[in-house]
Formats: sequence, structure tokens, C-alpha cells
Amino acid sequence: MAVKKNGAQTVQFDNPPILLASGSVVGPKEGEGPLRDYFDIVLSDDLYGEKSWELAESKMLRESVKKAVEKANLSIENIEYMFSGDLLNQLMSASFAARDLAIPFFGLYGACSTLTESLSLGAMLIDGGYADYIVAATSSHFSSAERQFRFPLEQGTQRAPTSQWTVTGAGAAILGAYGDGPKITHVTTGKVIDFGIKDPNNMGAAMAPAAVDTILTHFQDTGLGPEDYDLIVTGDLASIGKEIAEEMMLDKGYNIAKVYNDCGLMVYDTKTQNTYAGGSGCGCSAVVFCGYIHQEMIKKNLNRILLVSTGALMSPTSSQQGESIPSIAHAVAISND
Amino acid sequence: MAVKKNGAQTVQFDNPPILLASGSVVGPKEGEGPLRDYFDIVLSDDLYGEKSWELAESKMLRESVKKAVEKANLSIENIEYMFSGDLLNQLMSASFAARDLAIPFFGLYGACSTLTESLSLGAMLIDGGYADYIVAATSSHFSSAERQFRFPLEQGTQRAPTSQWTVTGAGAAILGAYGDGPKITHVTTGKVIDFGIKDPNNMGAAMAPAAVDTILTHFQDTGLGPEDYDLIVTGDLASIGKEIAEEMMLDKGYNIAKVYNDCGLMVYDTKTQNTYAGGSGCGCSAVVFCGYIHQEMIKKNLNRILLVSTGALMSPTSSQQGESIPSIAHAVAISND
Repeated sequence: MAVKKNGAQTVQFDNPPILLASGSVVGPKEGEGPLRDYFDIVLSDDLYGEKSWELAESKMLRESVKKAVEKANLSIENIEYMFSGDLLNQLMSASFAARDLAIPFFGLYGACSTLTESLSLGAMLIDGGYADYIVAATSSHFSSAERQFRFPLEQGTQRAPTSQWTVTGAGAAILGAYGDGPKITHVTTGKVIDFGIKDPNNMGAAMAPAAVDTILTHFQDTGLGPEDYDLIVTGDLASIGKEIAEEMMLDKGYNIAKVYNDCGLMVYDTKTQNTYAGGSGCGCSAVVFCGYIHQEMIKKNLNRILLVSTGALMSPTSSQQGESIPSIAHAVAISND
Repeated sequence: MAVKKNGAQTVQFDNPPILLASGSVVGPKEGEGPLRDYFDIVLSDDLYGEKSWELAESKMLRESVKKAVEKANLSIENIEYMFSGDLLNQLMSASFAARDLAIPFFGLYGACSTLTESLSLGAMLIDGGYADYIVAATSSHFSSAERQFRFPLEQGTQRAPTSQWTVTGAGAAILGAYGDGPKITHVTTGKVIDFGIKDPNNMGAAMAPAAVDTILTHFQDTGLGPEDYDLIVTGDLASIGKEIAEEMMLDKGYNIAKVYNDCGLMVYDTKTQNTYAGGSGCGCSAVVFCGYIHQEMIKKNLNRILLVSTGALMSPTSSQQGESIPSIAHAVAISND
């Protein structure tokens, strides 16, 4: 049974769920980035043989799940729950993938925090004995996100220098009650934090306070600190948000700089790939985790990580109504020990 | 610890979580319907003092949570997790309510199945020992849904006779590990089902097969049948979907007619209130359950119910791209025994 103090936001598992395998599918641009050799499938065309970017995104999500299941030596029928979400309105990508896969489905919306939201809930269901195997999967697509959240690509609108580049990619991770692999030891569930940032082209700044709140809470709840991790990695704060998060943590007495990185800065070479502040999207932490980090943990090059996917919960409607951007971050601690 | 057979979709709880209290807020039209005396707050103006319908919806959700917490003799700080979602893009209603309430937040999207999705996950977290108290809350608003999914109200577009009327309402239920009240004994998690219906003005027909699949699975997994329930109640199939569901169940050998009803037919007087096929929306099963059903269970007028909220997972984008409507239903069995 899980250990949890009443009122704290962190669960520590007695039977830590095992990250058995991950699958990843990325677009052409991500396939040219520094992590290119870690992805299972790199697309040469971001339509992936479909008639719309939305359907292409859904296919990426579905194929990442199939790849993860295959790498775990399981079949789809073994997977008892699918926890999944994406950035599209009404979760078009996840809903259509879940239809094709026919796995009992919990649809989640945490914007770009969805990977750790799904891993958190999945881990509790495994530790609690409700399932032997679950899949946590999420996706985003540059072209479907641009036209939904910003402007149609055909319009050729100029980008702000603080803007981020939505990752075209899907990642899926299989959690099991048995087997070999790194283990989820803790989950820290975030609150919605809003420091009043209203610029949807500066999401890193909006999300940084949420990441800081969750990382601080994780440290306070567990007694752990930066020295206990090889890598603390946020989802998609990118260059501006990462700097803010580092400074805010320092103000609170924690120097995380030595072990801290952000998936949005890892997935692209921001100097040569013209991605402005860096990557973003549900797919950002999904492909960096399911591609790079999980494999490096299996190779024991990384042994203790804190994965903190970060979500900006604004909608085009809320932005148009002049509202600020509520943000959230969920943390998952993963260990080889 | 939960009893669950591998491969089955149903969890039976060893420590059934208790439905301690519910809160409900409805709009003027719902306040004139047959369940008017069961709601905690009936609005005279569906803007609720806010400057947009979206913000009004979020306020309804927030106030329903506060009301439920108050009726459970708890304070907001006692609530360890909020499971919540709504129909608005990027969960604007739930995200903004969770910001104001500052409860650790899991955002869910199950369209109109969100009430039972949130109760299912919340119940597993309580039974598993991860929390003592959680809140499951969801909302919808006629005016925000119309302009997002269909047409701006100002346009005065004619409605199809098969169309449904989105409930303006929010419901919140507090689940606890201790205390008095009806108990959640089982949850059956749905798969995404799609029979190829493409008409977004006929959601009942699209969702009926999903409801049938989940109810059948519940019966098969548990050995229970219609005779074990006082009331089997779907979320928002309304008149057309309810008839289809009844017939499909009969085809499968189960006559549910005697104990079967649909929240979309309970919330309005469809003969006099001009609501076409009946009510729909996340708020539909939320206010019927959190208003009427929960109170009737506390009074012991109802003792064993199966609540099956139903969600149509289409988006305006998927409809415009000519895709059919994937649907889902999650069942929660609640008992006074």
C-alpha cells in the first residue's frame, strides 16, 4: 500500500510500478535533431499517409503505443487501461487512437503536462493492484497545433522570438506490476498556478512558476533535493522558462542548475533548427522521455530522474477574452535503484 | 485491496469509497424542470455575474465544489485531489475552477462521460489508500457549448428534431474513505466504440452502442443483471438513444426497460420545455446525479444504482473532416447495502 501523508501532494509507492518499454514516433524536423538516433520511427512526411494533420497525429499516437507494446513483449490485449491525451480540441488524436486500439480508455487533458499526468494515474492504478499493465501515451503535431491555437500555417504569420515550436511526435510508455526496468518511486501532483502572464507566445514564462511549485513541493514532501537526482527535467519551458525556473528555485534555496534541463531544449538544436525559444507540446516531453531518457536509464547512464511535464492550460477562447494562462506541472520520480 | 480479474474491465472494491455529499448549480431552464427542488443553487441569469458564458460555467463548477465540500462538513484544504473536466476546449471551465480552488488537479476529458470517469478514478485512489477525500466535478453550459460545437446563438440557426439541449449545470461529488453515505462498489471502464454515425445532431444514436457495450461488460464481469438494480441510468442518450440502447440490450438477452432511465429525459420536461430529444452535456448526468439521485439514495428511496455517463468524442474538426463519432461510457455501481 502506498505511503502518503494527509495533505501532502506526493505519493511514494511501496510496489513501484516498472517502466517496461517505451515507443516513440517523430516528424521530420525532430528526426534531424540531436536525439534522432533514439526514436523508433522518424517520418519523412508529417502527413504520415493520412488526409489531415489531425489524423496523422492520431496515427502517430496509435503507432507509438503499438511499438511500446511490442518492445515490452506484450500484446494489446494485455493492456488494461490506456491513459492518454493530446492538445487537439476534444482529444481528437487520443480518442481516435483509443477507438482503433480498443483498450479501456481514460481521456486526460493536462495540455503539455499530460505525459506525467498519465504516468501518475497509471502508476497509482498499478501499485494499487487494479491492473498489471497500462499504457500512458500522448502526442502533439506542429501543424495541427498551429492552426488550432495560433494561425493557419498558410497565412505565413511572423513568429514572436519568445514563441516555441510544437513538437511533432508521440510517445507511449508501458507500466507493469512485474518485469525489469526503471521504477516510478514517487508522483507529485500539481496545483493550477497562475502568475498573470497573458501572452500565449510566452508559454515558458507562464509555466515556470507551476514547475517550481511542483518541484519545491516534491522536495518538501520527500526530503529529497537536487543532489538526489542525475537529471531534473521539465517538459517544455524552453530557454526563457528554464532560466526563470532556475532563478525561482535559487530564490527558494535550491540550486538545481547542475542537474537541470528542459525537454524543449533537448529535442532541437535551437541554434540551427530555427525553433525560437525551443520545443513545446504534449509530444515534447513524451518523445524526449520515451525516446532518449528511458533508453539512457535502461543503459544505466541515467539512474535517478525527476520528470516534470508542464502544461499551459489556456485556450484560444480564454486568451481572446483577456484571461491569463493557468499552468500546471506534475512530477514523476523514476529510479534504477 | 481491489478484486479484479486480469483482462476484465470491472474493478470491485474491498473498501468501497463513500459518496459523502454532492453539490449542484443549474441554469434557469433546468431550475424550471421536474428536478427543480433537488438543486442547491438555481441561477436566474445564466451569465452568473460574469462577462462571458465560459467564465459563468467555470464559476458554476467552482461553486458546486464549494457547496459539496460544505455539505460534507469539510474544508477545501481537506480535499486531496480534484478530478474534473468539461466540454470547453482545453477544459477552460475546470482549469479556471481548479486554479481558484488550489486543489491538486487531474484534468479529464471524456465529453459527457466525464462524471463517471472522474468518479471511477477518484474511487480507485480512495480505495487504494492514496487519498482520504477527493472531489469529482463537471460542468456544461448551453450557451458556451452551442457556440463552440454548433453555431453562434446570435445566428438563430434552426435545430434538428434529433438534436439535444446542453444542460447548463455543474455537479460535484465528494468521495471519502470514511463516513456515511452510499458506496461505490464497482467501476466498469469503457472502451471507445464507433458504429459509424456521423451526424453531430444525433449524438444519442452515436452513444447508445457505447452505453450498451459498457453495461453488458458490467453484467458479464460481475454476474449482476437488471434485477440487481433499482435504477440503471445513462448520461445523455435522450429519447432516440435510450430507445436504441433498450433494444440493443434486449437483443443481447437483457430486458432493462423496467429499471432504465436516462438523465437527459429526467432533467427536462421534454413535452413542455422545447428541448428536442432531451438534455445532454457533462452537466446533464452531473446535476441529475449530484442533485436528484444522490439525495434519493441518502433518503433510501433508491438503494442500488448503475450510473453510466455517456460521451460523444467528436470534435468540430473531426466532423468537418467527415469522420464518424467515437463514443464512450463508463459505469459506476453505487449501493446503500
